[in-house]
Amino acid sequence: MISSARNERPGHDTADLSPSVAARHACRNGMAATTAGVANGYVQGNLAILPEKLAAAFHRFCQLNPKPCPIIGMSEVGDPRIPALGIDLDIRTDLPRYRVWRDGEVVEEPTDIMAHWRDDLVVFVIGCSYSFEEALLADGLPIRHIERKLRVPMYRTNIACTPAGPFAGPMVVSMRPFKPADAIRAVQVTSRFPAVHGAPVHLGHPHLIGIADISKPDYGDAVPVGADEIPVFWACGVTPQSVIQAAKLPFAITHSPGQMLVTDLLNKQLAVL
Amino acid sequence: MISSARNERPGHDTADLSPSVAARHACRNGMAATTAGVANGYVQGNLAILPEKLAAAFHRFCQLNPKPCPIIGMSEVGDPRIPALGIDLDIRTDLPRYRVWRDGEVVEEPTDIMAHWRDDLVVFVIGCSYSFEEALLADGLPIRHIERKLRVPMYRTNIACTPAGPFAGPMVVSMRPFKPADAIRAVQVTSRFPAVHGAPVHLGHPHLIGIADISKPDYGDAVPVGADEIPVFWACGVTPQSVIQAAKLPFAITHSPGQMLVTDLLNKQLAVL
Repeated sequence: MISSARNERPGHDTADLSPSVAARHACRNGMAATTAGVANGYVQGNLAILPEKLAAAFHRFCQLNPKPCPIIGMSEVGDPRIPALGIDLDIRTDLPRYRVWRDGEVVEEPTDIMAHWRDDLVVFVIGCSYSFEEALLADGLPIRHIERKLRVPMYRTNIACTPAGPFAGPMVVSMRPFKPADAIRAVQVTSRFPAVHGAPVHLGHPHLIGIADISKPDYGDAVPVGADEIPVFWACGVTPQSVIQAAKLPFAITHSPGQMLVTDLLNKQLAVL
Repeated sequence: MISSARNERPGHDTADLSPSVAARHACRNGMAATTAGVANGYVQGNLAILPEKLAAAFHRFCQLNPKPCPIIGMSEVGDPRIPALGIDLDIRTDLPRYRVWRDGEVVEEPTDIMAHWRDDLVVFVIGCSYSFEEALLADGLPIRHIERKLRVPMYRTNIACTPAGPFAGPMVVSMRPFKPADAIRAVQVTSRFPAVHGAPVHLGHPHLIGIADISKPDYGDAVPVGADEIPVFWACGVTPQSVIQAAKLPFAITHSPGQMLVTDLLNKQLAVL
């Protein structure tokens, strides 16, 4: 996945780079593919970039809705760096692919945003389920969509986020089916990771959270739920992108789905216990 | 409940006793009623007393089945004291009511076991769900059978305990229905209390653990489970009594259901986090 690091400029030795730095350098050099499975062990994040005049309201939205929008990093106004997530990180080049939004529509999906950068932009990096999925897998819990090489199924719910300024809308959730004892274990394992959505928000009765048909996700791919299984739902980092879209902002930038920021944080560092 | 402490012998001042010591003294003086609601905050325990020649196998059974049989105290052979659970505790007198078993049958339910005590007996005190119920209530989670002043519904399952010597049989579970988000919270809260059954063993699909009709518990009282609720099942301290019965031992003593040992331990001391 990060083999495009071979495209690094001559003389730049990538052999000693950590997997996360190598992944970001690969992006800088044109790698544009999913980051699923890239730099295992390292925290990946959802991206939201907004003009300063909207950033405070968005920050408040995240503060009020920490389960779908757990902030793991923020930039200074106009600064494309977030040293806490990677000393050399440049948010303008270090993701595989971006979405540029105007008035609620994706107008471009570039592999860098150098041409779109502005001195008034503020960067938000939001925790992502890849981190807790690593913990679930490490615990021996099977994850259906990974086994089947599909995207996780995601659903808009009837759970309203707490609104802030122009940002409002339903919580989006991701679903993973488990045998009942594994569902209990999954609650325990993911409770240790509040920075990456934490414990589930629901289990067992999809219709109670406004999901009419579990076989028809609003995003991602459907996966089967066995008669001996429980569908377990986690707050999902698609929520902030969904509310940014709904707010029809004049301008915003996000990551392209599945093509996340790879940070230098370790997933295990996010465990609170 | 502990008003029979007024029957204490003259000159013995009970005013300064802790609620747990007062409860045991009340038992010594003839109090024979449920200990539900007695000495809130203090750990209560299930009792099993066995001859030394069976005690090692029973201890091994508990070791192998820690969720239904979490040992919180043990005596030396022939010693009716367990100072770790109460300095002045005398297991022969300090429970409201006992069951004396011979060949798998209850032959007597005395309020003390002075006449049955022997130098070869070993005492086991096993954690009880009262402790984690206190934590659930403290967290604001409603407990159906408590609200309705019923006994918790309990069920024999198809989950086989790991056998040891003559001790074998199915795990008995208790059931509490919760709204889905509360069920998730209940997993978190009870996970902190491994010494008193810990996290649930099952949720959501009773038939998968051999429960054909949730409205017909094998012990305790039925409680309704709403269409918007999830039945959540915990390993239950009735399990050891059930396997003692099934083993048809020549001799054993247990507590009488609901009439537990009140210890000087605080429930909050059992929390691992």
